[in-house]
Amino acid sequence: MSTSTSTKPMREQVEEYINNLQDQIVLAFEKLDPNAPPFKRDSWVRAQGGTGCSCVFAAPPNDGAVSQHESVLEKAGINISIVHGRLPPSAIRQMRADHNSMPLPDRPDGLPFFAAGISLVVHPRNPHAPTVHANYRYFEITEPESPDADDVTDEKEKSPQEVLAWWFGGGSDLTPSYLYEEDAVHFHSTLQRACDQHGPQLYPTFKKWCDEYFYIPHRQETRGIGGLFFDDLNSGTHVRLPATLPNSDVLVKRPSTPEDIFTFVRALGDAFVPSYLPILSIRHNLPYTPHQRRWQLIRRGRYVEFNLVYDRGTKFGLMTPGARIESILMSLPETARWEYMSELGEEGTEEGRLMAVLREPREWV
Amino acid sequence: MSTSTSTKPMREQVEEYINNLQDQIVLAFEKLDPNAPPFKRDSWVRAQGGTGCSCVFAAPPNDGAVSQHESVLEKAGINISIVHGRLPPSAIRQMRADHNSMPLPDRPDGLPFFAAGISLVVHPRNPHAPTVHANYRYFEITEPESPDADDVTDEKEKSPQEVLAWWFGGGSDLTPSYLYEEDAVHFHSTLQRACDQHGPQLYPTFKKWCDEYFYIPHRQETRGIGGLFFDDLNSGTHVRLPATLPNSDVLVKRPSTPEDIFTFVRALGDAFVPSYLPILSIRHNLPYTPHQRRWQLIRRGRYVEFNLVYDRGTKFGLMTPGARIESILMSLPETARWEYMSELGEEGTEEGRLMAVLREPREWV
Repeated sequence: MSTSTSTKPMREQVEEYINNLQDQIVLAFEKLDPNAPPFKRDSWVRAQGGTGCSCVFAAPPNDGAVSQHESVLEKAGINISIVHGRLPPSAIRQMRADHNSMPLPDRPDGLPFFAAGISLVVHPRNPHAPTVHANYRYFEITEPESPDADDVTDEKEKSPQEVLAWWFGGGSDLTPSYLYEEDAVHFHSTLQRACDQHGPQLYPTFKKWCDEYFYIPHRQETRGIGGLFFDDLNSGTHVRLPATLPNSDVLVKRPSTPEDIFTFVRALGDAFVPSYLPILSIRHNLPYTPHQRRWQLIRRGRYVEFNLVYDRGTKFGLMTPGARIESILMSLPETARWEYMSELGEEGTEEGRLMAVLREPREWV
Repeated sequence: MSTSTSTKPMREQVEEYINNLQDQIVLAFEKLDPNAPPFKRDSWVRAQGGTGCSCVFAAPPNDGAVSQHESVLEKAGINISIVHGRLPPSAIRQMRADHNSMPLPDRPDGLPFFAAGISLVVHPRNPHAPTVHANYRYFEITEPESPDADDVTDEKEKSPQEVLAWWFGGGSDLTPSYLYEEDAVHFHSTLQRACDQHGPQLYPTFKKWCDEYFYIPHRQETRGIGGLFFDDLNSGTHVRLPATLPNSDVLVKRPSTPEDIFTFVRALGDAFVPSYLPILSIRHNLPYTPHQRRWQLIRRGRYVEFNLVYDRGTKFGLMTPGARIESILMSLPETARWEYMSELGEEGTEEGRLMAVLREPREWV
């Protein structure tokens, strides 16, 4: 762990970091499967302000009957976006409700925002290899620019506006179709190690939050075997992180300054490849049956249900005019399946072993 | 058209009708494909009050590599439900907002409701054959029972409570993957004929409502080529149905009494088989390519997006504790597909011909 001593504004530091992390992750997947086509790198510009880059893997569609190299991945997207603009008053009210630690003033013209993040979803082809998702983001709301700021045409020359609110959010979680306990333990342990250097309550608090967040109420099951989820992490007290030890005044160590929180988020981002690639490297080679593939596609159906019905990021994206729908929905699997009253997943089967863990989240470390 | 002179309460008449209609529709599909397995008939009881019957078609999963008879249908559900219970005050407030022609009183204990309906979705296997959906429902809200009514244990002996509000809703719409204009014309003409006997404004008004309802904002396209959609149809003035001819005091003919509206809804229910089966009978036999199958699965992905993100019935069902999830989500296709930035659907292709119609709904009759 290195303590950053950069004097650059946080938004620039975050932008630089997610750019590098995206490269590193894409290269790791490409190295694992050198015979597969490379990721497609799509840079885009947002008309309302900002840029992004979607790195997407898709196997060529099997339109003909010709047998092909079976790629390790079926569909994957590793996306970054760095956007800015103005939040209208209605969005600020919504944001105040969702992020209640932020004292945001009402302004008739709204407030400027900046958001930078990396978001990835990887769906491997082999039913023994789990789907993984990770997302790390930084959000900032600033004072409106002074009226004459528009005269300065070069963005870089504008003096930085006062930051009214800022926070980091993110997490990573694993969604297997078949339960390999050692994979769940490896994934969680790797994340726990990345957390524990920065405070003892981070892993248990954000692990629990993850189980709660990725819950599908209408199925009464979680999407997967969890990981970490957090939001609203800034210098203030956090509604979920205990400030002191139980029944004591002793403060619990946690990252509090912007730099410390960014260092913590970098530790998690850096932990992505070691948390997941070793699992994928083993599982993608296991033989599988049509029955196992069928179960995987049913589980992908549940993934679609969660993302379209409950996921806050997806819902926010779909409601945002001018949002890049192809990037938002790249999280959806290539193929999903819905069976009426499927008999798969019953107790006493391999599929049922997974279901038991999704119905009652377990402690893995 | 026969004018019903029944003296039975409307709820019993509706229950009888949808029971018969379900049988008739299931038999029509079974007759079309006698070599396919029959529909699975699942009767169920709702713990909180009511019964239902889901008739579901599913082809046996192709777990082995053995080539099978290719069934006409891939997945279909033709469901009825007759449920009753008590709407809590929060649900009444929501209902008042959604159905603003109903003057519903606030009661601390809520109000009793009754709902009976038939709901069907049919996904054929052949990409040339369109998916179809239809739904007809009757809703009633009554005065709470008098406190001593609980002593009467036989439901039939209870005196009927005063109906505070009632309405019919429903419609039917077609979702092709490939555009056959003659199919769209046949489907719409059949529905139009069923409407026109009951009033000249019914088809144009409910056709327009359908195009608006089945719109997917984040894709800027409709789910399919439309049909009919209506709600809140009762004796009162209807927010969408013009009461008089333009610039005149002449009243426009429309069904207004409960019996006339039920007769109209029966005409639409009876029109389902003639509106759809002739299309399916022709299209299910056309040869198709893997490319066309792939496009069909992409379109099914859009179907999933609409149903999970926007469909009011689905969303209401998912939020309802104790709802039968398997019946609600039987509308989802067996398989759906999501491609990042798919090149399919471009102008100048057969797929693009469909897209043009989804982006700008057309008048078909």
